Amino acid sequence: MRPDPARDSALRAKLRSVIFGTDTPAGRYFDMVLIISIIMSVALILLQTVDSMQAQYGTLMLKLEWGFTILFTVEYILRLYCSARPLKYMLSFYGVVDLLSILPSYLELLFPGANMTMVIRVLRLFRIFRVLKLIRYLSEGNMLLRAMMLSSRKIFVFFFSISLLIMVLSAIMYAVEGPANGFSSIPKSIYWTIVTITTVGYGDITPKTALGQGIASFTMLLGYSIIAIPSGIVTAEISQQIGHRRDLRRCPNCLKTGHDPEAHYCNRCGSELPEDI
Amino acid sequence: MRPDPARDSALRAKLRSVIFGTDTPAGRYFDMVLIISIIMSVALILLQTVDSMQAQYGTLMLKLEWGFTILFTVEYILRLYCSARPLKYMLSFYGVVDLLSILPSYLELLFPGANMTMVIRVLRLFRIFRVLKLIRYLSEGNMLLRAMMLSSRKIFVFFFSISLLIMVLSAIMYAVEGPANGFSSIPKSIYWTIVTITTVGYGDITPKTALGQGIASFTMLLGYSIIAIPSGIVTAEISQQIGHRRDLRRCPNCLKTGHDPEAHYCNRCGSELPEDI
Amino acid sequence: MRPDPARDSALRAKLRSVIFGTDTPAGRYFDMVLIISIIMSVALILLQTVDSMQAQYGTLMLKLEWGFTILFTVEYILRLYCSARPLKYMLSFYGVVDLLSILPSYLELLFPGANMTMVIRVLRLFRIFRVLKLIRYLSEGNMLLRAMMLSSRKIFVFFFSISLLIMVLSAIMYAVEGPANGFSSIPKSIYWTIVTITTVGYGDITPKTALGQGIASFTMLLGYSIIAIPSGIVTAEISQQIGHRRDLRRCPNCLKTGHDPEAHYCNRCGSELPEDI
Amino acid sequence: MRPDPARDSALRAKLRSVIFGTDTPAGRYFDMVLIISIIMSVALILLQTVDSMQAQYGTLMLKLEWGFTILFTVEYILRLYCSARPLKYMLSFYGVVDLLSILPSYLELLFPGANMTMVIRVLRLFRIFRVLKLIRYLSEGNMLLRAMMLSSRKIFVFFFSISLLIMVLSAIMYAVEGPANGFSSIPKSIYWTIVTITTVGYGDITPKTALGQGIASFTMLLGYSIIAIPSGIVTAEISQQIGHRRDLRRCPNCLKTGHDPEAHYCNRCGSELPEDI
Repeated sequence: MRPDPARDSALRAKLRSVIFGTDTPAGRYFDMVLIISIIMSVALILLQTVDSMQAQYGTLMLKLEWGFTILFTVEYILRLYCSARPLKYMLSFYGVVDLLSILPSYLELLFPGANMTMVIRVLRLFRIFRVLKLIRYLSEGNMLLRAMMLSSRKIFVFFFSISLLIMVLSAIMYAVEGPANGFSSIPKSIYWTIVTITTVGYGDITPKTALGQGIASFTMLLGYSIIAIPSGIVTAEISQQIGHRRDLRRCPNCLKTGHDPEAHYCNRCGSELPEDI
Repeated sequence: MRPDPARDSALRAKLRSVIFGTDTPAGRYFDMVLIISIIMSVALILLQTVDSMQAQYGTLMLKLEWGFTILFTVEYILRLYCSARPLKYMLSFYGVVDLLSILPSYLELLFPGANMTMVIRVLRLFRIFRVLKLIRYLSEGNMLLRAMMLSSRKIFVFFFSISLLIMVLSAIMYAVEGPANGFSSIPKSIYWTIVTITTVGYGDITPKTALGQGIASFTMLLGYSIIAIPSGIVTAEISQQIGHRRDLRRCPNCLKTGHDPEAHYCNRCGSELPEDI
Repeated sequence: MRPDPARDSALRAKLRSVIFGTDTPAGRYFDMVLIISIIMSVALILLQTVDSMQAQYGTLMLKLEWGFTILFTVEYILRLYCSARPLKYMLSFYGVVDLLSILPSYLELLFPGANMTMVIRVLRLFRIFRVLKLIRYLSEGNMLLRAMMLSSRKIFVFFFSISLLIMVLSAIMYAVEGPANGFSSIPKSIYWTIVTITTVGYGDITPKTALGQGIASFTMLLGYSIIAIPSGIVTAEISQQIGHRRDLRRCPNCLKTGHDPEAHYCNRCGSELPEDI
Repeated sequence: MRPDPARDSALRAKLRSVIFGTDTPAGRYFDMVLIISIIMSVALILLQTVDSMQAQYGTLMLKLEWGFTILFTVEYILRLYCSARPLKYMLSFYGVVDLLSILPSYLELLFPGANMTMVIRVLRLFRIFRVLKLIRYLSEGNMLLRAMMLSSRKIFVFFFSISLLIMVLSAIMYAVEGPANGFSSIPKSIYWTIVTITTVGYGDITPKTALGQGIASFTMLLGYSIIAIPSGIVTAEISQQIGHRRDLRRCPNCLKTGHDPEAHYCNRCGSELPEDI
C-alpha cells in the first residue's frame, strides 16, 4: 500500500514543528523531554564508570543505557524522516552529534571492550547545546560571546607572549633543578611552569634547590600579577558592552536612550519601555 | 491570679522594643549582648570538636554549652511571648533559625551520640544575620547584592557553559589517564577537573602521562583566562552601581547630582550635602 | 668643660637636617646609606637562619650583625640627641621601631638562646617605611590607599559574609568527612575551607568521600567566582580615582581639565601643563 | 678574480630586502620559512631532553640539530654580508640572539658535556620576536604594553608594599613553625609565603601547628583579596586605553569621533571609516 503523499507530507510537517520547533506547546514539551533524557543519559554514563555502582547496579544501568540508545535512535530516525533535506541535517553539526550519541552503544555490541567509546558517548552532552536556542534569546550568551570575540586579538597577543615566557622559564628551571628533582625534561618543566604560573600548584613537582625556589617565587609573583591582564581585557570589553546595550534601549515615544536595565517607564516622557534586551 | 492585661501589654511592648528594636539604648545593648553570645557559643562549638581541648576542658565546655542553650531558650520564649504574632515569628526564617540553635542540645540529651547535631548547631551562626539589620543601613551590602542580582543571568550562562566544558574535559582525562593514575571514574575525573580549572590544585590526583599533562596544561590555562569572565561581569556591574549611586547624590538646594562620595558641600552652591547613602 | 650652647644648638640643627630631612644633599645621602644598611642588615638576618651559611660564615655574620647593631645604636643616639623633643620621638612609631631594631642584639647577649628575638629583629625592616616619605611624593601610594579606604566598607561586608559561609561549609565538611579523613576538628576544617575557597589548595587535607568531593567542588567553584567581588570593588574604585585625577589636571592658562596623563601641553590653548600629579 | 662592485652591491641590496624586509613576496616567504625553522628547532631542543625520545631517535635528532645549526649559520653569515653596517647588526639585540642560537652547538663540539648550553639554545626562541614586526601592526601589543607602562609605577608601589608584608609574615611563620615543620630558614619561609600569598599552594611545606595554620589562613585571605589590586590597576588602564582608541577613530569627512570598533560607516554622515587601528 502506497502512502498518501499529501497525508504523509502533513504528518512530516507536523512532526517537524514538534521536533525542530520551539514555538508550539508540543515543540516545547518535546524539547523539555529531550533535555531531561540527555542529562539523565549523561549522568548514567558517569555512574557507569564508578566501580561500586557498576558492581551493584551494573545490569540495571546497562538496560537503562540501551533504553536511552533506542530512544535516541528513534529520535534520530524521526529527524531524518521529517527533515526537509535529510542529507543536510546528517552532515550538520547537530546531525553528527546526534549520530555520535547513539553509535558507540552499537559499536560496543560489535567490538566489545572498546574503551574509547565512552568519550564519544559523553559527546552526547553536546546535544544539550540545542537548548542554546533558548539561551540565545537571553542575549546574555551573545553579549559574553561578543565581548570574547572583540578581545580575542588582545588575548592572542597575551598568550603568545606568555608562551615565550613559559618556554624560557622552563629551560632555566630544567637547567637549574635537573632530572634529579623531578624536572626530567623540558616538556615536563613546561608542565611545571604552567602549573605554577596559573597558580594551580599541584605540588607533584616542586623546586628543591635554593636558586630553583627563588626562580619559582618569581614565576608565581609573575603569574599572580599577569592574571590581571586577561581579566582587565575582558572586564573592559564587558563594560563597553553593557554601556552599549544601555544605549540601545530607546523609548518608543520620545526616543530617549540610556535607560536603566530595570527601568519600566521612560524617565523623560513616562511611556512604557520595551523589555531589556 | 489573672495578670492585668494593660500592664501585661505594656510589658510586652517594652520587651518587644528591647528585643526586636534597635533604636533605643536598651535595644542596642540587647543586640550587642546577643551578638557576643552568638559568637562565643559558636566559638565554643568549634573548640568542642578539638580533641585536646575536649580532654582538658570537656566538662567546663559542656557546662558553658548548657549555659548558652538555656540563655537562648529564655530568649526564644521571650520572643514568642512579646511578639505580636507568635506563630508568624515561629515560621519566619529567624524563628526557625532560633529554634534550630537550641534544639540540638535537647535532642542530644534524648538521643546521645547524634553526631549530625553539630552541623545544625553551627547554623546558630545564622542568627548573626540579625546584625545585618545594622549592615543593611550601611547600604553596601545592598549594593553588592544588587550587582550580584543584575549579573546573575550572565553568571548562569557562564556556569552552564563551564559545566559542559568540565564534563567533556573530564571524560577525555578519564580515557587518557585511566583508573591506574587515580582517575578511577568520570565523577572523580570531574572533581579533578574542577580542582584544576579553579586553580585550586590539591595535587591528590595528578596526570602522569605526557598526553594527560598536556591536556591538564590546557585546562589550567583555560581556567586561568576564563576566571576573567565572572570577574569582568561583576566588576562592570559594580562600576555601574557606583556611578548610579553618585548620580543619586543630589544637592538639596540646587539639585546638582554626581557629587564625590566624600564631598560634604555641594561644589556648585555650597549647601551642605546629605551623608553618602 | 661646659659645651657652648649656641654651637651645640647649631650642631644639633645641622644634624637634624641631615638625619630627619630629605631636602639637602647630605640628608638625601644619609637616607640612601640608611636604606642600604637596613636592607643589608635584614638580608643578614635572613641568611643567619640558613644552616649551611651559619656553618660556613657564622662568625663573620655575627661580626657584621654587631657592626649593624652598633651603627643603628649610634644613629638612635644621634636621633635622640638632635631631636627637638626626644621623648616624643622615642614614643613615636619610628622611635619604637628604631629601638626594637637594636634591642634584640643586646638582649641576646644577656639571655642567650632567646629565639623570638629574630622576629623582633625582622621588624627592623619597618624602618624602611621611612623611604615612604619619598614614595608618598609619587602620589601612587596615596591613590591606591584612597581606593582601598573608599572600598573598605564594601570589603568588610564581603568578608563578613564570606566568614559565615566558611563556618557553615566547615561544619558540614567536618560532619561529612570526619576525623578519619584529616578533618579532625571544626577549626581544622575551617583551615581546609580557607585553603580551598582562596584556591590555594595545599593538598595536605583533601576530601576522600564522594559526597565530600562534591561539596569541595562546590566550594572551589564558589571561591572561583566570588574572587570577582573584591576584585570588582577595588577595580571600580581605582577607575574612579584615575578619572578623578584626570579631572584634577588643569591647564594653568585656560583652566581646561581632563588632560591625558601623558599630555605635556594643553590641547585647547597650547600652554605647558604641570607634571601629572 | 675581483667581484664586480656594482653587481655585488645589487646582490646585497636584493638579499637585504629578502632577509630584513617584509614588503616583498620573497621577504614574506623568507620570514615564514624562518619562523617555522625556529619553532621546529626549539621543539627539537625540547624533545632532545626527553629520555625516551633520546633513546629512540637520538642520532636522528642530532642530525636535525646540526641541520638547523648550519641553516642558521648560513643565515647569520648572509645577514652579516648584506647588512649595511655589519658591526652594528652584530652588536644589536637580534644580532646577539642570532649568534647565541648557533654558538652552543659549536661549543658543545669543542667542550662536550656542557649542560648549560641548552638554556642558551632555548634563547633561540627569542628570534621569534622578529615576528613581532608583524604583531606590532596589530596595535594590540602596543596597547597592552602602553597600559602596562602607564600602570608600572602603581604596580611598583604595590610590589614594594607586598614585599615588606611577605618578609614580616615569613619571619613570624619561621618563629611559629620552626625548622621541625619544614620552615628551616627565613628564606625558605619566604618561599612558603610567596607560594601561599599567590594562591599557588604546592603543599611541599605546610603549617602543622594550630597557630601556624591560623596565620596561614590569614595570609591566604590576604593574598586572595589583594590580587584585586594589580587586577584593578591594569583593568582601569586598559579601559582608559580602549576609550582613548575609540576617541581617536575619526570620520575623514565630518571629523566625528567615538565610533564603535566594528562600525564601517560614520553614523552621522555615512562616509566610509578607516579600519579600526
